[in-house]
Amino acid sequence: MNNRRAPLQPKADKAAVRRHNLSLVLRAVHDEGVTTRAAVAGRSGLTRAAVSSLVEQLLASGFLSESGKSFSGQAGRPGTVLKVARTGCAGVGVEINVDYVTVCVVDLSGTDRVRLTEHLDNRGVPPADVLARAARITADALESATAQELRPAGAQLALPGLVSGGTVRQAPNLGWSRVAAEGIFAQALAGLRLRLAPEAAPPPLPVGSGNEADAAALAELWFGGPAGDGGRGPRSFLYLSGEIGIGGALVVDGELLRGAHGFAGEIGHVVVDEDGPLCRCGARGCLEQYAGQAALLRAAGLAADAGRPGVTELERRARDGDAPAVAALTGAGRTLGLVLSGAVNLFDPDAIVLGGTFRPLLQWLAPPIAERLERRVVSGLWSADSGRLRASSSAGDAARGSAALVVRDVLADPLAYAERAAR
Amino acid sequence: MNNRRAPLQPKADKAAVRRHNLSLVLRAVHDEGVTTRAAVAGRSGLTRAAVSSLVEQLLASGFLSESGKSFSGQAGRPGTVLKVARTGCAGVGVEINVDYVTVCVVDLSGTDRVRLTEHLDNRGVPPADVLARAARITADALESATAQELRPAGAQLALPGLVSGGTVRQAPNLGWSRVAAEGIFAQALAGLRLRLAPEAAPPPLPVGSGNEADAAALAELWFGGPAGDGGRGPRSFLYLSGEIGIGGALVVDGELLRGAHGFAGEIGHVVVDEDGPLCRCGARGCLEQYAGQAALLRAAGLAADAGRPGVTELERRARDGDAPAVAALTGAGRTLGLVLSGAVNLFDPDAIVLGGTFRPLLQWLAPPIAERLERRVVSGLWSADSGRLRASSSAGDAARGSAALVVRDVLADPLAYAERAAR
Repeated sequence: MNNRRAPLQPKADKAAVRRHNLSLVLRAVHDEGVTTRAAVAGRSGLTRAAVSSLVEQLLASGFLSESGKSFSGQAGRPGTVLKVARTGCAGVGVEINVDYVTVCVVDLSGTDRVRLTEHLDNRGVPPADVLARAARITADALESATAQELRPAGAQLALPGLVSGGTVRQAPNLGWSRVAAEGIFAQALAGLRLRLAPEAAPPPLPVGSGNEADAAALAELWFGGPAGDGGRGPRSFLYLSGEIGIGGALVVDGELLRGAHGFAGEIGHVVVDEDGPLCRCGARGCLEQYAGQAALLRAAGLAADAGRPGVTELERRARDGDAPAVAALTGAGRTLGLVLSGAVNLFDPDAIVLGGTFRPLLQWLAPPIAERLERRVVSGLWSADSGRLRASSSAGDAARGSAALVVRDVLADPLAYAERAAR
Repeated sequence: MNNRRAPLQPKADKAAVRRHNLSLVLRAVHDEGVTTRAAVAGRSGLTRAAVSSLVEQLLASGFLSESGKSFSGQAGRPGTVLKVARTGCAGVGVEINVDYVTVCVVDLSGTDRVRLTEHLDNRGVPPADVLARAARITADALESATAQELRPAGAQLALPGLVSGGTVRQAPNLGWSRVAAEGIFAQALAGLRLRLAPEAAPPPLPVGSGNEADAAALAELWFGGPAGDGGRGPRSFLYLSGEIGIGGALVVDGELLRGAHGFAGEIGHVVVDEDGPLCRCGARGCLEQYAGQAALLRAAGLAADAGRPGVTELERRARDGDAPAVAALTGAGRTLGLVLSGAVNLFDPDAIVLGGTFRPLLQWLAPPIAERLERRVVSGLWSADSGRLRASSSAGDAARGSAALVVRDVLADPLAYAERAAR
């Protein structure tokens, strides 16, 4: 269908080929976890000699480490084992949500190496103050990262709203509108780091930003697969993030569907009842008003603003068979099921993944959701025993997904990072 | 994000390169409409000599034609003008809908060369009989195509339902379930052609199949752009096809979003009211029950099964200011607006395109739809004057889109078609 493919290049530029192949080899080692030069050659289609030369450069730049003898029973000179380095290049993810901030630093393998969470209410606080709080927690995390010999390549913010071009266009539950989050955060972080190390101030960290549910969905894609499955779960799924609001993300064939303006996935504002309760977005009767945290707690007879402790209490009550708690969850599940059946008819994913506070509550939410999916999805692929409705893995969240995004950029062009680091 | 890119091939196979470049040159001429060897070289990045050799082969195989002198004012030897051939390779599209069948034959440029429509009620008729009817109309169209020296490369069926692997999984409004449409149609067509020309029976035509709204959306993408804009409309849009049922399709960046199983876009079965009227799909309160043709006609005081003539009558009454007609359209528009605002929040397209019977009715449907989009889409990009809600072009429909799909396959590998034709 693509009409404008470039012709095959008879000769690609030599330096560009090496740059590309450095990434190819680094990603091969990353994806395998533990491997050998021979296996990398086999997988990449490059010659053994080319792989050896590329591996030398990646070892010298600190992207790879090698150790011991390989475990392969193959004939010939035994190879050593290659892994991505546990020190050096790292990514920082910063999730700024309505009632908490989580900062996480991952190494090149995507492993969590630092994780800090602060529960605090960000509603009614000026955006610059919220971003300054997040910068403070990030500065603390960077200190721990430095102590572990990690050198972050950048930080990626995850925010509960519509984010595009470094700016939060709308984040109804934070009450933000047109906030230049990247710039404000970067400045606050640079100021803090200068104060901490006035003589040896590190270069400013590049800052990116995106939607919280998008980042959580990527974490699910990259880290959420069943153990033993090479970390691979479904490749096309609809992700729901249950927080104060309800975020959503669509993953198609292993890629995020961002929409024409980067604003896809806003399932929390799909209408349930045009004349329903007023939502923070300005419309009436959005899904959030029926299955968001406040609605859920209120329906169960708890304080609508009880937050995470309230969710824990709701879970405890439901487990004890408390009728109002069970009824609240069943009602929310019914509404979720209606909206989700529409989304499945539209988008035909392989699975629905429920994360955030929906995860601990899934055993009560799932039956009414599954009933509606079975009854309403035209394809007939969503019977209650299809296994397509699942809880998110505990292995990933928006902060880790964001941090991993930074690392993916390095994997795609390690030389660019090495050149920046050498400056 | 793509982790498994192949390494750059140091040397690509020579025959494969030529095969690829034949397509590149043919597509360049196709996309430009009228062009010269020099312009093709400029656009493709190939040398003038290579383009000349490739053009000779494409002329000899009948894919291109040349004529006259070029109109460019450039210096040097004047070139002749290249176009894709008006004879030879063609594509056949066969739309089988609930109350009509349309067959269309397009040439390599995508131009309609034959078009036959029969209005007939396919409900309650056994699927094999419906497919035999469609085959008969197709055989007639093929005769006209032959008279115009067109040689179809294949036929593509467009069906109002969930189609995958040659089979209609569900087509609620036809009452079809698990019908092997491709095979049945191909056999019926081969039988007819054998009867028409028992001595010189042509080789069987390859048959493909897909969803009707998907094909109409592709026609909109390829042929629906404003005149003078090189045929280009929006590249990311949600397409609604208003027929007896309501079909839908999602186009992202110029590509159809098919879903994990090929069943995406079923907007007609998004829920409006869980306790609403029973739908042909077996669920209650689907959008079709509020904005489908039967519901619309019934609400206006017309017979629910009045079909296309009923829609024409509805349009006439609305134009005369008939209150029940206007109220019916306003009510349907309100419901469409609610479902569409949810779809836009989920999918963030650039535009919504309304086709089929929605097209003549849009002036009454649009205001209530636009009001809901403006109020309910979180991004705020859908104000009533944004121009994002539009009628489909009259230039394309599902039959033409299907026929063009066949031609696109030939454009992608003209040699394969030439090799088949030479047998």
